[in-house]
Amino acid sequence: MTINRPETSPSLDDEDLERIHAWWRAANYLSVGQIYLMDNPLLREPLRPEHIKPRLLGHWGTTPGLNFIYAHLNRVITARDLNMMYVMGPGHGGPGPVAAAWLEGTYSEVYPDISRDEDGMRRLFTQFSFPGGIPSHVAPETPGSIHEGGELGYSLAHAYGAAFDNPDLVVAVIIGDGEAETGPLAASWHSNKFVDPSRDGAVLPILHLNGYKIASPTVLSRIDPDELESLLRGYGHTPYFVEGDDPEQMHRQFAAALDRALDEIAAIRARARRDGAAERPRWPMLVLRSPKGWTGPTEVDGHRVEGSWRSHQVPFGNARDDASHRTVLEQWLRSYRPEELFDGDGAPYPQIADLHPSGDRRMSANPHTNGGGGLRPLRMPDFRRYAVEVTEPGATVAESTRILGHLLRDVMAENMTSFRVFAPDENNSNRLDAVLEATDRAWALPITDLDEHLAPDGRVMEVLSEHLCQGWLEGYLLTGRHGVFSCYEAFVHIIDSMFNQHAKWLKTTNAIAWRYPIPSLNYLLTSHVWRQDHNGFSHQDPGFIDHVVNKKADVVRVYLPPDANTLLSVADHCLRSRQYVNVIVAGKQPQLQYLSVDAAIAHCTKGIGIWGWAGTDCGREPDIVFGCAGDVPTLETLAAVDILRRLFPELAIRVVNVVDLMRLQHADDHPHGLSDADFDALFTRTTPVVFAYHGYPWLIHRLTYKRTNHANLHVRGYIEEGTTTTPFDMCVLNRIDRFHLAIAALDLLPHLRDAAAHAREQLKNTLIAHRQYIRRHGEDMSEIRHWRWNAPTDDPCEAVSPVQDIP
Amino acid sequence: MTINRPETSPSLDDEDLERIHAWWRAANYLSVGQIYLMDNPLLREPLRPEHIKPRLLGHWGTTPGLNFIYAHLNRVITARDLNMMYVMGPGHGGPGPVAAAWLEGTYSEVYPDISRDEDGMRRLFTQFSFPGGIPSHVAPETPGSIHEGGELGYSLAHAYGAAFDNPDLVVAVIIGDGEAETGPLAASWHSNKFVDPSRDGAVLPILHLNGYKIASPTVLSRIDPDELESLLRGYGHTPYFVEGDDPEQMHRQFAAALDRALDEIAAIRARARRDGAAERPRWPMLVLRSPKGWTGPTEVDGHRVEGSWRSHQVPFGNARDDASHRTVLEQWLRSYRPEELFDGDGAPYPQIADLHPSGDRRMSANPHTNGGGGLRPLRMPDFRRYAVEVTEPGATVAESTRILGHLLRDVMAENMTSFRVFAPDENNSNRLDAVLEATDRAWALPITDLDEHLAPDGRVMEVLSEHLCQGWLEGYLLTGRHGVFSCYEAFVHIIDSMFNQHAKWLKTTNAIAWRYPIPSLNYLLTSHVWRQDHNGFSHQDPGFIDHVVNKKADVVRVYLPPDANTLLSVADHCLRSRQYVNVIVAGKQPQLQYLSVDAAIAHCTKGIGIWGWAGTDCGREPDIVFGCAGDVPTLETLAAVDILRRLFPELAIRVVNVVDLMRLQHADDHPHGLSDADFDALFTRTTPVVFAYHGYPWLIHRLTYKRTNHANLHVRGYIEEGTTTTPFDMCVLNRIDRFHLAIAALDLLPHLRDAAAHAREQLKNTLIAHRQYIRRHGEDMSEIRHWRWNAPTDDPCEAVSPVQDIP
Repeated sequence: MTINRPETSPSLDDEDLERIHAWWRAANYLSVGQIYLMDNPLLREPLRPEHIKPRLLGHWGTTPGLNFIYAHLNRVITARDLNMMYVMGPGHGGPGPVAAAWLEGTYSEVYPDISRDEDGMRRLFTQFSFPGGIPSHVAPETPGSIHEGGELGYSLAHAYGAAFDNPDLVVAVIIGDGEAETGPLAASWHSNKFVDPSRDGAVLPILHLNGYKIASPTVLSRIDPDELESLLRGYGHTPYFVEGDDPEQMHRQFAAALDRALDEIAAIRARARRDGAAERPRWPMLVLRSPKGWTGPTEVDGHRVEGSWRSHQVPFGNARDDASHRTVLEQWLRSYRPEELFDGDGAPYPQIADLHPSGDRRMSANPHTNGGGGLRPLRMPDFRRYAVEVTEPGATVAESTRILGHLLRDVMAENMTSFRVFAPDENNSNRLDAVLEATDRAWALPITDLDEHLAPDGRVMEVLSEHLCQGWLEGYLLTGRHGVFSCYEAFVHIIDSMFNQHAKWLKTTNAIAWRYPIPSLNYLLTSHVWRQDHNGFSHQDPGFIDHVVNKKADVVRVYLPPDANTLLSVADHCLRSRQYVNVIVAGKQPQLQYLSVDAAIAHCTKGIGIWGWAGTDCGREPDIVFGCAGDVPTLETLAAVDILRRLFPELAIRVVNVVDLMRLQHADDHPHGLSDADFDALFTRTTPVVFAYHGYPWLIHRLTYKRTNHANLHVRGYIEEGTTTTPFDMCVLNRIDRFHLAIAALDLLPHLRDAAAHAREQLKNTLIAHRQYIRRHGEDMSEIRHWRWNAPTDDPCEAVSPVQDIP
Repeated sequence: MTINRPETSPSLDDEDLERIHAWWRAANYLSVGQIYLMDNPLLREPLRPEHIKPRLLGHWGTTPGLNFIYAHLNRVITARDLNMMYVMGPGHGGPGPVAAAWLEGTYSEVYPDISRDEDGMRRLFTQFSFPGGIPSHVAPETPGSIHEGGELGYSLAHAYGAAFDNPDLVVAVIIGDGEAETGPLAASWHSNKFVDPSRDGAVLPILHLNGYKIASPTVLSRIDPDELESLLRGYGHTPYFVEGDDPEQMHRQFAAALDRALDEIAAIRARARRDGAAERPRWPMLVLRSPKGWTGPTEVDGHRVEGSWRSHQVPFGNARDDASHRTVLEQWLRSYRPEELFDGDGAPYPQIADLHPSGDRRMSANPHTNGGGGLRPLRMPDFRRYAVEVTEPGATVAESTRILGHLLRDVMAENMTSFRVFAPDENNSNRLDAVLEATDRAWALPITDLDEHLAPDGRVMEVLSEHLCQGWLEGYLLTGRHGVFSCYEAFVHIIDSMFNQHAKWLKTTNAIAWRYPIPSLNYLLTSHVWRQDHNGFSHQDPGFIDHVVNKKADVVRVYLPPDANTLLSVADHCLRSRQYVNVIVAGKQPQLQYLSVDAAIAHCTKGIGIWGWAGTDCGREPDIVFGCAGDVPTLETLAAVDILRRLFPELAIRVVNVVDLMRLQHADDHPHGLSDADFDALFTRTTPVVFAYHGYPWLIHRLTYKRTNHANLHVRGYIEEGTTTTPFDMCVLNRIDRFHLAIAALDLLPHLRDAAAHAREQLKNTLIAHRQYIRRHGEDMSEIRHWRWNAPTDDPCEAVSPVQDIP
């Protein structure tokens, strides 16, 4: 196998080289300054201890490589008038893009106090990794970035997400060789099988082989070169390698490689857009093998630094107190010859600024990286059109997510360049197949007769990787487009940490004035815990909600629509929203439908409410309150009410259904939270409450422990019991079924006494009979499977509106 | 590039072929039977509706391929007397290994009611995916498995974990082409760079290209064949390809490929064990490309089934009610010619049984797959030897995890074939570098002069992938060995879902009589939320504890040792334990040391206790109780007490420190939970409590909401505020610092009135001064950085023992 090395570029003349090199020196100077200095930014005097920060926090190792790449990208952006953005996987090279944005002027535009002069440079240096300043990683605060570089592994997926439906964009993504060891990054290489060169932008991966991570060499830097090339070709790329440490040679090689890659991208685009989907392209990519801590000190205290893991973070730590370290630092800084780079006021000389593209072409100012700015709201069809007809509650059956699929189909059809749905091979399993009437699944590999609904320009993104679905969607949202991620509830935990980082991004950007709001990240969690009776225990986990509600209240929302029309109303709301993570949990199996679309809208608008039609309190003070959140808990609650009202017609039962989970929390703790007065009006101050909840029951306690009536709140939910069994048995195992709920209520109603004891016995026998039945027949008893809500024939109340107001 | 296809095997004679084929038919027959039948297992009469299960749940698609591989592995195990186990990545092929275990007799040995006769076969069929039966996936219930196949992506990492330190073992791991799209699996390919052929077993990956996942083709089955070969060679393997659908041809080809691969493994082993670490081996692997649903019905209802995604699950669903479907099913079953496979009693004929290895050589009975059986307890040095000397509480400083590193070093030295430590490139960052005095980092790639502590036989497993660390460790534990995973606290969320599956495995195996207990999964979470002031917001997340405590109480334990000696005591306990997930959260930064080793042992044995030396209640009823859990919260609590006792010497303050978090929960809810009486004795029934907790504060409420004094419990913790700042400022941002804690206490002590108001003002001013100071100087004020606990000179109590009993 021959290693693909580009020829020296004829396009890079000596003047270009000089300019690129000067810019690189400037960016490196500013990077070192950010890590070390809090004063004397232009080295007007010899470094003194008080010029050095007391705590040195930052990462030098990868930074010069990032700066090198940035300089070269600037050349080609200008030469080719490219619409280019960057994603920096080695986010701990944070000083690099900050330096670039300052040199390009963007930094001072968005942070006027960080001016492009000596004062500004001092503040630029001081603020880095400093209280009240900016983080050490590429972060929301960094202009031009859509990628928080603190947690590694998501850069390539973010880059593809940004490229989808941006036909003119080129996303340069720098992948660190440490990051490349992570699972999500390893899977992301195959994203090129989901890109359409006609419709999508291009991703240019630049694998940056630094050699070391924190303390050890990296796998990709140490495997044989032919093995690495084989791997990258196996990923479907044509790789070009640039290796060395001599700047001049490296500049020439890298420029040539970059030109070659961009020529190929241009050719792929032209061919696809001229001839339509032809042969599958092999997208080019670059490999830059350069020393870790390149241009930094060669040796400090007798230890090799440049080219070694020792330059990963701060190459030497005692510059404030140790004069010899300070000398090394000063020599290092002066090696970039700052006097040739910055004028007397501290502003970069024109020779530096000349390299910059202007305006929106600057990568630090590319509008796609502040995606909310160019955001087009979704064209939304009226969701009422898709409603299930519900003439009386609980009599008809529908698959709620299938109904939602109809809405999503038409959202797709109306927004064919700004909306996508993402699923780990579960779109149809989750009953969203109607979407495939409007588009196909994206697939750039060969298609056979046996395949269905695959096309290079499909807009349903299916790959068996939750990480890729999430990463692509994040990149898509961060560049101002819209989407939904439908996922098996249990397996959304695979991206817990990615959710964390996105929620943190949203929280942080809420406080950054120049960042525009972006569309919300919408999860549809279906195939949920109660209906994974067939797949068993491994597929049963409702804990993502617990994970989500730990994040800041102003960025997270959780909805548990109990039927199709409430799901439509919630989905419509979520798709229109900005800057949230919306979690919608809804079942895909046939289930009872309760609310007409108007009633659903009224209910969802409140987010929580008394279901007068289901209760028997009729405005009286209730003897018992049933709370419910989630489709299956709602079903079992209604069935429990049905049992009780037949046994004890005189009992005043209230049913409170919760769609918007955060209504349970106090108004002080969440923007959706109810006031205590409103909460008490629903759940009373003293009446016992049996609350059937979709997930782990203690979450309800965590949300309500401050409420007046909390001591009387008895929550049932998933208590980590399950296996392969029947749907109803899943409820029985976790004691959230109708019989257990009715028994729980009876236990709380001492005045019923002997009558209750008798009823309890009867219900327990029914449960025993159930277990015997399913072990014999393998399915639930017919009266369970076919149970329907029947309005009481002797209605205890006068006409009660379908959704009663909070009293 | 030429595709590597093995020659037809000379070793496979016609008799072998016949026997393998018969075994395959038998396993396929039994697999179809499990999916469809609940009676008439030997087809003694035509199929009637009542023979068919009412709910058909299971996956056929991958199963015949799994059975095919199993049959061939059996041949080579016997021929070569191999010690071989399997890991089945496509776990939804559950019927396959169950069929194999039944044929081999193992199933009846561990489940005597599933006998190897007609009755047993009926029960075998009925129990599959049936209430009271077994899950549809390869599961803990499956003999011979260490791998729950419900969540995809971890097979290859599990296989390597099993192979480490098992020099005679060969782990055959079948990787599904759907699974291969996941991130964790994609990263796992590089595991071969961490295997030592001298000391470790071999992993034989078998990539099973079925063509389709649930509804779409798979990436690896559709890329060009030369691209696939390039990819696999890039992963460092020598791949052998077997492709087709004609059974005879496929048997011959696969046998040849398998022989070739095993010859190479034998040669690699021999060379390494004879010559020592020589050239890095390219481990062989197999690629089996066979039709999805192979040998199943070609077409049903006009749709192609065999070779299509339609055979992924149950190929046709209406066999109970639709006579024509039933006919298809019967023809399908009869196509395996069961009368030639099973005798009149339903037992397999000798020709089938002849293929089986005997006893422990059966893969379904390999002792490594029930790893607790052969488990050797760790030889544990006395942890007291490593203790920090603490003559008085809070006067000296040490890095707690560094102290632990000394213990781990000697645990390593004493257990050089059964203990490993795992870390995502963070072993040294987490201050466990002493371990590298006993061993090196595992590294099978070239080593240069700049590298440190790398060796092919190193036992510190470092790769920048939490998924790989977790997957390897799980495989290592499940085969009966011991380990510790040290991880940055925030990034352990990356393996939330893997933890889920492991906790579910433990919960399930607790109820499986024949499974032996395995060593606990020990997490050391360090570089924790309070000391990620330098890395910033992306690195700040203490939510893993919340995630963990949702799992069954009998498998999860959470410890928050406040200093080095308590950490030693906790670690010693965890390393000796079985069948738990132990989460230990401990800081790595220099921190105050409170307890002598004897006091630490006493404190950890109780798990919670009053620190008499820190309080001023001296046995009196306290005016206020401070609770604390976690090292930084403990520090801030003590500093708050220090403030208060200086301001209000007469105040009776009690300090309760929590090491074992689950002590807070009720004894009914967790085995470690305190009774209400014991809890009340610590926290009183009516006194206000200010509780400083390491993580999200509401977790403490969730654990204690039933306690008598809960209404008076005020918890401070991480409220999702953070950035790059100083360590103390992290506390201030989240209002858990000493000043906020003291203010919180004053707010709860109305009798102090005016004096409190004055003190409150003073403390608030200090906080303002703090913020001004750090923004100017970039570090915390000296009096914060150098604060030490000083026992009051005018000790309000008589001598109080360092750890006081629960009264």
